[in-house]
Amino acid sequence: MKLFFDYKMKIAYLGPERTFTEQIARDIFPEEMLIPISPIKNVIKAVEKNKVDFGVVPIENFYNGEVMETLDSLTESSNVKVVMEKYLEIVHCLGVLPEHKKIKQIMSKNQALEQCSDYIYKKFPDAVTIPVSSTAEAVEMIKKENKIYAAAVASEKAIKDAGLKILDKDLCPKNKTRFVVLGKITTKPSSNDKTFLVIHPHIDKPGILFNCLKFFNDSNINLNSIQSRPDKNKGYYFYIELEGHEQDKSVSKCIENMRSFLDSECKYPDAVKILGSYPNTHWKDED
Amino acid sequence: MKLFFDYKMKIAYLGPERTFTEQIARDIFPEEMLIPISPIKNVIKAVEKNKVDFGVVPIENFYNGEVMETLDSLTESSNVKVVMEKYLEIVHCLGVLPEHKKIKQIMSKNQALEQCSDYIYKKFPDAVTIPVSSTAEAVEMIKKENKIYAAAVASEKAIKDAGLKILDKDLCPKNKTRFVVLGKITTKPSSNDKTFLVIHPHIDKPGILFNCLKFFNDSNINLNSIQSRPDKNKGYYFYIELEGHEQDKSVSKCIENMRSFLDSECKYPDAVKILGSYPNTHWKDED
Repeated sequence: MKLFFDYKMKIAYLGPERTFTEQIARDIFPEEMLIPISPIKNVIKAVEKNKVDFGVVPIENFYNGEVMETLDSLTESSNVKVVMEKYLEIVHCLGVLPEHKKIKQIMSKNQALEQCSDYIYKKFPDAVTIPVSSTAEAVEMIKKENKIYAAAVASEKAIKDAGLKILDKDLCPKNKTRFVVLGKITTKPSSNDKTFLVIHPHIDKPGILFNCLKFFNDSNINLNSIQSRPDKNKGYYFYIELEGHEQDKSVSKCIENMRSFLDSECKYPDAVKILGSYPNTHWKDED
Repeated sequence: MKLFFDYKMKIAYLGPERTFTEQIARDIFPEEMLIPISPIKNVIKAVEKNKVDFGVVPIENFYNGEVMETLDSLTESSNVKVVMEKYLEIVHCLGVLPEHKKIKQIMSKNQALEQCSDYIYKKFPDAVTIPVSSTAEAVEMIKKENKIYAAAVASEKAIKDAGLKILDKDLCPKNKTRFVVLGKITTKPSSNDKTFLVIHPHIDKPGILFNCLKFFNDSNINLNSIQSRPDKNKGYYFYIELEGHEQDKSVSKCIENMRSFLDSECKYPDAVKILGSYPNTHWKDED
């Protein structure tokens, strides 16, 4: 079954090619035209300006936490929403040239090096870690520059496609990244959705967050995640992911009440912003 | 006045040298012996094993958000606590060789490149960003390899010390990083403290976070920040920073009640863990 639209769609994803983001974009959209774009905010702009139908970006990793650039860009954008979430098990492998010598350098994207830091410090305590712009680039550099003293942390596919040898597998067990599909469509409620909100109170008094959460609690709406973030202007953003669709009666009523509470005079349209409703994959619960 | 101890102390900080972390470590401990260590978890281990008296690491940046490696390492460590916080205005500058040509590459630590991405995409839309292990290394590489087509994002001091030229200043305005001093001492209450907690509920039911926050709200304890984080085992950690010292009567009573609520049978010592109490610098509020 084709997702969303019937014509051949253009899908922007956080590039470059041969990364985990391309892999999940291809999983979700097997037959569409994939276009690598970077950085994240440019993927979101491409969706906003109708240059593509949808965008695919990472939003959270088990080890690195939330991807702030994705949260910030969504908060700033006017009409781009999360329409789908999908997670990928990130199986990092260690790739080397077949004729490699003792490993002195380990290259990868910064986030991947952080995810594998336990492994690296145990197995290669004397190696230097070298951040490059993507896992794919690490593999590319080792091959192109014939780096026989270096290893790359990347996907099995990227390593094998380049003709490198897999020295070790799954360097960071139980590692998952959650990706989101961004678009301008309105999703329909299923029986198992989540809604992503950002709350920006323009009043500063103790207990404001507690009072916002009380609306959800009183309506028996369960929260999936919560993050506060300074707005650089003495205030805070609160990012909240809750169970239910924005069109569900209890959710919409709750958001309406919260909006009246935070912006009774209708002066601050950004007091409550819905960043999207989408089917819940229970990505944190699966083994 | 000397901080904490009278003898010449050993202070570990997240290295390498000539970074913003070294700058704040030197501000806080002008006369002590500073020892660069990386990564963050090894700074915390050095404190834990009494190899140093204190450690200095970043914990939060306005643009990049929380430093997950610091939160995770503190959660895992048995007796290392936050004893002080201090923020630094991060004034990023662009450094080039005096004889530079048109800039094609911009090099820096990944986080610094992210912080300055608006500037880079506006002023150097065609330049490639190249992540390296620190802002100091970016400067070093341009000098050593005579990269006349490259620029480094780093501190004014690092750029000038290397004999490079400042091409532009304050690339990312209003940028601040909060650092923490880690140690094994118990701080005394001042009249203006914060307490950092991590809550790890071993029961899973709707509203558990709300019920925890209710204890604080009922005691008129204000929250400064809150972050949920999956524990990789179907549960969550909640990181909470609140106003008050752990020895303040209202705070200690509140924590005690919360602990009884989350772990009535005393089976889970990590249900509530105090990560430290320290004077509040109001780092988010200052201009």
